[in-house]
Amino acid sequence: MSISPLDSAAMQQAADRQKTLVKPQGALGALEPLSVRLAGMLGRTDGMLERRAVVVFAADHGITAHHVSTVPQSVTAYMVGQFMSGNAAVNVIARQMGARVTVVDAGVNAELAYTTTEAAHFIGGKVAPGTADFTQGRAMSAEQARAALLLGAAAVDQEVGRGLDILIPGEMGIGNTTTASAIVAAITGQPVEQVTGRGTGVDDATLRRKVQVIETALQRHVPAGDDTLMKLGGFEIGAMAGAMLHAASKRIPVVVDGLICTAAALIAHQMNPDVRHYLIAGHVGAEPGHRIVLDYMGLEPLLALDLRLGEGTGALLALPLIEAAMRTLNEMGTLDLS
Amino acid sequence: MSISPLDSAAMQQAADRQKTLVKPQGALGALEPLSVRLAGMLGRTDGMLERRAVVVFAADHGITAHHVSTVPQSVTAYMVGQFMSGNAAVNVIARQMGARVTVVDAGVNAELAYTTTEAAHFIGGKVAPGTADFTQGRAMSAEQARAALLLGAAAVDQEVGRGLDILIPGEMGIGNTTTASAIVAAITGQPVEQVTGRGTGVDDATLRRKVQVIETALQRHVPAGDDTLMKLGGFEIGAMAGAMLHAASKRIPVVVDGLICTAAALIAHQMNPDVRHYLIAGHVGAEPGHRIVLDYMGLEPLLALDLRLGEGTGALLALPLIEAAMRTLNEMGTLDLS
Repeated sequence: MSISPLDSAAMQQAADRQKTLVKPQGALGALEPLSVRLAGMLGRTDGMLERRAVVVFAADHGITAHHVSTVPQSVTAYMVGQFMSGNAAVNVIARQMGARVTVVDAGVNAELAYTTTEAAHFIGGKVAPGTADFTQGRAMSAEQARAALLLGAAAVDQEVGRGLDILIPGEMGIGNTTTASAIVAAITGQPVEQVTGRGTGVDDATLRRKVQVIETALQRHVPAGDDTLMKLGGFEIGAMAGAMLHAASKRIPVVVDGLICTAAALIAHQMNPDVRHYLIAGHVGAEPGHRIVLDYMGLEPLLALDLRLGEGTGALLALPLIEAAMRTLNEMGTLDLS
Repeated sequence: MSISPLDSAAMQQAADRQKTLVKPQGALGALEPLSVRLAGMLGRTDGMLERRAVVVFAADHGITAHHVSTVPQSVTAYMVGQFMSGNAAVNVIARQMGARVTVVDAGVNAELAYTTTEAAHFIGGKVAPGTADFTQGRAMSAEQARAALLLGAAAVDQEVGRGLDILIPGEMGIGNTTTASAIVAAITGQPVEQVTGRGTGVDDATLRRKVQVIETALQRHVPAGDDTLMKLGGFEIGAMAGAMLHAASKRIPVVVDGLICTAAALIAHQMNPDVRHYLIAGHVGAEPGHRIVLDYMGLEPLLALDLRLGEGTGALLALPLIEAAMRTLNEMGTLDLS
């Protein structure tokens, strides 16, 4: 997939316009360079980013056999049901932000069946009912990794068909902070202890087990090359990486959520570093690996609210700031003190 | 003005409900305690904060005689014109956030005249055409300080008459970072050098002059008692303090913007520390004194975007987070894993 560089003419136009607006230069802080980056992504200065979709990719993780989470694997399927019925945090915040929600079964370890009405917002793309335990071998096969990436791209194509100005990939998968921390440690080379956190809130003993499990896996799989996705998983992470690469190839800005979503961005970045140009970090959350991977990719988060929910919620919360960056660029008057 | 304590029953109800929502406890980070605080302010858990007003208080400062700003005093009146015609950043962001804008002349050093249509969003409450130079004496008289405070309260009363669920005080006043830094140094006792920044972007020489001017004033006026407003000014700061105290007395949440607005909160806090319960810090900006005064009052900012514009813009940008705190509390489903 080829990803275009940012449009430097549009960026220059945005930067020039920023200098003329009725405010001191730089007074809108982070919103000003954001407006310039967005102009570069869109190839125009007046993109209003009105058509917004959250695509929540769900999958299970074989690593849960090691009891690395506070809740059982069945909660993944349970939460998919919550997303489908509109009760979860992502649904509430998406409604507020004027974004639609699509749910993708990338590899949930349960049969998911939905009514016709619900099915309009559901993609049943299950690669397999959960990844394999990555301490014992590869989390997935090469074919499965390819299928996950393609699933993400296909989900983006469906959303583009409905009209899409900005994409928010979200995720759900019990155990996936363990997978994500493993990916971050493997690619950034940072110590496992520093990139591993408490996920949904595990106790000290479970945190030590998480670290141990990841260290075991990295000894088995080291050095992680460009097959990190295959070695560590998961299916939702691969699908998100595919979605990001595909969106970037279509010049659609992607707002990145928490640790798991950012680990998916890292997988995408490993496959094509140019994807970075189309990524906006929505927030930095409570998981310690999150800041590390954002720094690694050179992304500065818009929010820091100590979130640790995922689902796409932190990225959604940043949407009004992204909108404000474009609105101020376009709607403010220009300075005339003569 | 008497300010009620937060409603502990409503806070308990909100905290209890947070524990039942379909998410790990604490996963919504800063939004969860914010929802509990808001319930305490409103005395109910289901306040939707839909009726929003920004009230921009404008005034001039005698201290500009010392060339502490990059732009002339006349820019205050010019910007009031921009607010009235809807071209400024505050207008653009207020439209995005569904907030109305009212402009108050608290003490602009110019005749401001508006058409009948515009006048519906303008309050001509000029206390005097600018404060006196506070290095030479008091910035204002006791009567003027009282008039400024009452002007803020009257503006809140007008907004309450139109329907008001949440208040965003904003400001405009060339030279007012100098005034605000002086107030912060006087009340918190922190060194002038540490609380003084570059405002709209002054050079090193001007920054040194700002510090010098403030130190001169504080030597003259020290120790600052509860007459800080009178000694240092300005009229817009006094009016904002009055607006905050009055809103708090009516259990209306107030979102606090940048350094100047936060200095006004500090004046209000000096008059009645209970005002703090009704204040939400929208952001921490680029001015070094801002973080210092937020810490002094024990307020944690929602955003940190390196803003340095004022007008109420940083507080407006935080509104979607405040709305999301209440929406998630009220609209999310409850957990049933049985």
